[in-house]
Amino acid sequence: MSKATIAVIAAVSAGAGAAATAAMYSMRSDKKPELATTTTTTTTTSTKGVPVPASQVFSNQTTTAPAPVPAPVPVPVPAPTPAIPTSGSLPAAPVNPAGLFEYGFPGPVADLAARQALVSSYDRRTRNPHWVAEHFTPTSLTIRDGDRKNSAFLEDPAIPEKFQAKLKDYFRSGYDRGHQVPAADCKWSQKAMDETFYLSNMCPQVGEGFNRDYWAHFEDFCRRLTTRYPSVRVVTGPLYLPKRDPADNKWYVKYEVIGNPPNVAVPTHFYKVIYAEEQSAPGGKVALGAFVLPNAVIPNEKPLGDFEVPLEAVERASGLEFANKLPAARRKRLCAETSCSIVVKEYAERQKAFAKK
Amino acid sequence: MSKATIAVIAAVSAGAGAAATAAMYSMRSDKKPELATTTTTTTTTSTKGVPVPASQVFSNQTTTAPAPVPAPVPVPVPAPTPAIPTSGSLPAAPVNPAGLFEYGFPGPVADLAARQALVSSYDRRTRNPHWVAEHFTPTSLTIRDGDRKNSAFLEDPAIPEKFQAKLKDYFRSGYDRGHQVPAADCKWSQKAMDETFYLSNMCPQVGEGFNRDYWAHFEDFCRRLTTRYPSVRVVTGPLYLPKRDPADNKWYVKYEVIGNPPNVAVPTHFYKVIYAEEQSAPGGKVALGAFVLPNAVIPNEKPLGDFEVPLEAVERASGLEFANKLPAARRKRLCAETSCSIVVKEYAERQKAFAKK
Repeated sequence: MSKATIAVIAAVSAGAGAAATAAMYSMRSDKKPELATTTTTTTTTSTKGVPVPASQVFSNQTTTAPAPVPAPVPVPVPAPTPAIPTSGSLPAAPVNPAGLFEYGFPGPVADLAARQALVSSYDRRTRNPHWVAEHFTPTSLTIRDGDRKNSAFLEDPAIPEKFQAKLKDYFRSGYDRGHQVPAADCKWSQKAMDETFYLSNMCPQVGEGFNRDYWAHFEDFCRRLTTRYPSVRVVTGPLYLPKRDPADNKWYVKYEVIGNPPNVAVPTHFYKVIYAEEQSAPGGKVALGAFVLPNAVIPNEKPLGDFEVPLEAVERASGLEFANKLPAARRKRLCAETSCSIVVKEYAERQKAFAKK
Repeated sequence: MSKATIAVIAAVSAGAGAAATAAMYSMRSDKKPELATTTTTTTTTSTKGVPVPASQVFSNQTTTAPAPVPAPVPVPVPAPTPAIPTSGSLPAAPVNPAGLFEYGFPGPVADLAARQALVSSYDRRTRNPHWVAEHFTPTSLTIRDGDRKNSAFLEDPAIPEKFQAKLKDYFRSGYDRGHQVPAADCKWSQKAMDETFYLSNMCPQVGEGFNRDYWAHFEDFCRRLTTRYPSVRVVTGPLYLPKRDPADNKWYVKYEVIGNPPNVAVPTHFYKVIYAEEQSAPGGKVALGAFVLPNAVIPNEKPLGDFEVPLEAVERASGLEFANKLPAARRKRLCAETSCSIVVKEYAERQKAFAKK
């Protein structure tokens, strides 16, 4: 049985293993990344090691005009761990476990991709993203240079072949290729919209009643936040949550895996962490909202507020952390600041209302 | 329902979030790690940036005496990704998704820990390791300075509180706290043995018929390889494999989560990747074996060879890679070189046989 299971998973060709290793060592910063502080002499360090003056990072701090674009913030390259001495630096050990790395580093590698439209982190085990991060403003949403009719779903060539989600995995699976960063948030350029069509930005989602309905209304809610906030960030991703089985009273995670051989996990739930920024430059107050929705049909009558959860719930469930560097004094609760509710409209009507803004 | 699930997961205190972020930035190498090549002028770079001459790394290359200790190989700090320009370096984007990192980097962080006895990587979502790597030699196994009676199971303080596996999660769960690096491989010092007792080196394992029986015999098989090989490395970890449901012919991953609230995943399977090194210094031939065993009662009569799988099967199932830097010319197949079979003995008898070696 276990052998059959493995054999199925093992099928198909070897793929770009060596390339993945090469990639693993290809993007190391020469400096420890530091995010900007309020001191103007502070520099930030990009992943290429090019310092960005703090003055540039904060140049829009007092601007109140709609939708100025914040200066670029570098992508921090996370170090994997707390500093613990390697066995090599300890005396008298008759073994050297780290010698393994002569054969390569096992990973996990999270395939961080920083595109124009989104930044994403990929889970090579489930073939879904860990998270995708997007940003939009009142202005970015009014620019219409991209049309989804011109975009095509794409396997992500930045992921090693053997860990890629494939178009054929989704084919006839019964699930939508569900955008995590919605295409509709990236109409400001065709290239940006195209970037949202990589399968590394997708998860298998229930179509009718969820991806095409309640989840779409939820995405619309996020966009409507720009009527109040000059800058909105959203981090979206899958969850695999346990459920108590009444038969034995134990908790089980159970999820389908689509593809033949099985390849892409079907998440049980999805989260969004919303950062509604009161000003468009860094440093202002942020209204935070965290939501977890089941990957299932949700009636439109269900209040969005029912899906609000403490941020830490998403953190514990995902193994991620979302606002460690955001001081309590800068935080507000989104659903206390604004009404957290979806607006259900026919598609044409939604488009019309949207154009008026 | 989903809210109840989340609420359960969200329970308990906030923990060391800020500390985790601090840790994330605390161990960055100043230099790109390079593993040694065969050129004697090549240097390797440790995580502390201290170059190790290649001559030192290869100093034992022609030694044939039992159990010389290979020179320390540095722990490479993996960069997360292929280099892709950040949005900041592209023209005209009206948004900046990487601006998110002002609030912290979401992760995932794999909590790489390099101890004397083992190197481990931790999965904050399942609260199990991704992998643990160990090394032993004929000599290391004969030194007896540690006794498991003096060791105690410990929550790993190197993992942020909110992502830790806890002793109470295992309590009355019905599962053993199953060592991934076996305590019996680390008798060479009490400290080394103690290090194997961190819960970051444990997974919930079926006790009778598996952890205390077949799995223990399998661990014994690994140790017995030292009668033939001067140096043996083993990487061990959990898997969560799908199974086809005959009811609907679909594939599902299903696993229990122990703890109240549910916290630690119970793997469906475990893998070991074995590197039996023909010489104790780097550069020699390596007999590779990959095995996947179900987390279930296995009759002692079942041949170990039944659990041998292609290395790539473990890679696809785990999302990890194990031998990218090991050229094909240096690889052999373990089970073609030696008999892959367990020896079932009563505990006392096993101890006696072991002492004779």
